[in-house]
Amino acid sequence: MNDSRKIIFSDTTLRDGNHALQHQLTEQQIQRYCTAIDKAGVDIVEVGHGNGLGASSLQVGLSKVSDSNMLTIAREYLKQSKLGVHVIPGFATLERDIKPAIECGVDVFRIASHCTEADITEKHITFCRSEGRTVFGVLMMSHMVDKETLYHQAKQMQIFGAEAIILMDSAGNYLPDNVIEKVGYLVDRLEVAVGFHAHNNLGLSVANSIAAVQSGASIIDGCVRGFGAGAGNTQIEVLAAVFDLMGFKTGVNLFSLLDAADLAEECVINKIPTISSDSIISGMAGVFSGFLKPVKRIAEEYHVDSREVFLELGARKVLAGQEDLIIEVAKDLKEKSNE
Amino acid sequence: MNDSRKIIFSDTTLRDGNHALQHQLTEQQIQRYCTAIDKAGVDIVEVGHGNGLGASSLQVGLSKVSDSNMLTIAREYLKQSKLGVHVIPGFATLERDIKPAIECGVDVFRIASHCTEADITEKHITFCRSEGRTVFGVLMMSHMVDKETLYHQAKQMQIFGAEAIILMDSAGNYLPDNVIEKVGYLVDRLEVAVGFHAHNNLGLSVANSIAAVQSGASIIDGCVRGFGAGAGNTQIEVLAAVFDLMGFKTGVNLFSLLDAADLAEECVINKIPTISSDSIISGMAGVFSGFLKPVKRIAEEYHVDSREVFLELGARKVLAGQEDLIIEVAKDLKEKSNE
Repeated sequence: MNDSRKIIFSDTTLRDGNHALQHQLTEQQIQRYCTAIDKAGVDIVEVGHGNGLGASSLQVGLSKVSDSNMLTIAREYLKQSKLGVHVIPGFATLERDIKPAIECGVDVFRIASHCTEADITEKHITFCRSEGRTVFGVLMMSHMVDKETLYHQAKQMQIFGAEAIILMDSAGNYLPDNVIEKVGYLVDRLEVAVGFHAHNNLGLSVANSIAAVQSGASIIDGCVRGFGAGAGNTQIEVLAAVFDLMGFKTGVNLFSLLDAADLAEECVINKIPTISSDSIISGMAGVFSGFLKPVKRIAEEYHVDSREVFLELGARKVLAGQEDLIIEVAKDLKEKSNE
Repeated sequence: MNDSRKIIFSDTTLRDGNHALQHQLTEQQIQRYCTAIDKAGVDIVEVGHGNGLGASSLQVGLSKVSDSNMLTIAREYLKQSKLGVHVIPGFATLERDIKPAIECGVDVFRIASHCTEADITEKHITFCRSEGRTVFGVLMMSHMVDKETLYHQAKQMQIFGAEAIILMDSAGNYLPDNVIEKVGYLVDRLEVAVGFHAHNNLGLSVANSIAAVQSGASIIDGCVRGFGAGAGNTQIEVLAAVFDLMGFKTGVNLFSLLDAADLAEECVINKIPTISSDSIISGMAGVFSGFLKPVKRIAEEYHVDSREVFLELGARKVLAGQEDLIIEVAKDLKEKSNE
């Protein structure tokens, strides 16, 4: 590829990976990993609770280390890399979370919403911009809506001040053609950079990241060893190797990145993600994996196949919070099987 | 995709996966897995020593169960699926290995050679054809030569009587564009079907299998949970899910295949493959992973980075048996670093 673009890597091992650790990432792990990943020349290193700034709670899981402590340590050990945070306005408030994060020296605020709710990000985006920070807008579960809707939502974030838009494939549902269609559409129309955040439920996270870059994306998220909940994220050191082979510029030192991955395997990662049957079904269905447990319980109760329940929930485009639908779907399938 | 082709799945869990088990696959594992995979409607189930028929030996590893016993059990429990074997003429002889395998009821003989040595397959291919068996020609390490050479070699196998040609990405080195180029070239020119056998060193086995089918391939190899040595093979149940989403016909029952994968995880697979830093380097280099251990030892001795040694061996297109080159490369790198 003859392309002078530099691909920006955003490493989310210590944030998306924190999901897989039930948010029990320790101060020492942050220190050791940040020291290693910084040497690799990765542009942005995201750190925090799996659900981002201010999310630590009994309901979604308590962090072992406070946001401020995590960010202070990361900031100290990141000499080259920028420090990033994931921010969902429902969890993070300006006074309690954003202002202290700015004081900790966070460089990049990635303000995220469900793919149809960009409007909730306005206050956070404008505030972080007014404080001179870099701000990305992040559209989660972006497989659920068409490219026009994504563009409309992304455009809003751009107007609020976002300097890049990241499409998240939160459920690991995209095929490369979907990436090409949606990323390409946004790249052609937005004035800001576009990024992609893949999950590996269908074994396509590396391929989808390639497709994103070939469609004009310039920011790619990933984790060493593909760390993360369920099937995990894009394995960033694999992607770096592939980009090297393809001639894309990343500015990353591959051997140092492999060293960081080896170190993480030794002292951060509890289990390297693999693709389970559940991950495949949740990826196919495009349904948030948090549904898995209640679906299995209810399917057993109604003597129906939990996988059929899951796929039907996907067909009905269920959202987090709509767990009541599970019983309805199980009942429907039960009736059908009795016919 | 509007394509009436049926994709033939060849499951190699009990053959390529046997590498990861140091060929210690048991009779009970064969029985249980064959029962499960047969229900999924997978076309071909390969069984045997990792290096194929007749390969059990002190040098490459002794099988726990003899070829005849493995094949007899598999044949008994496969009701729908065809039984396949991997055959490298250097290991398997007609009298000692092929004839007994025919008596065991093997349906598909996959006669394999290094990608430039198709001529050694003539006797085996013609004999198995004369016995009325289905015969595929398999070109291993196919990343090492250009498409014209592959075509020439494949054409030879076709003339010998091979009814399909499988390109093996033995070192996990292909990018999707390489697949498109090589598979497409063969599909356009051969009169027989073309297949693809991927490894996951660069996280692209699913994507490369898709690329192969989109380029006209109609036979795809894989293992449940991507089982196999090192980074493993294409995760076949993931690919089945993706092909379902893409509208390709495989004739496979996805839920039964997921059940077989779950069963294998429980009673066959010792460790689900993940992609280590070593796997990435060996995939990038396109070098047989058997070089890893001696390379590490010699690199340490010469105080050079084993990864640089590996990549340089790849650049020199080293082949199994050329281990002497490792010292030469290590010395060269050492001298360079002293300059």
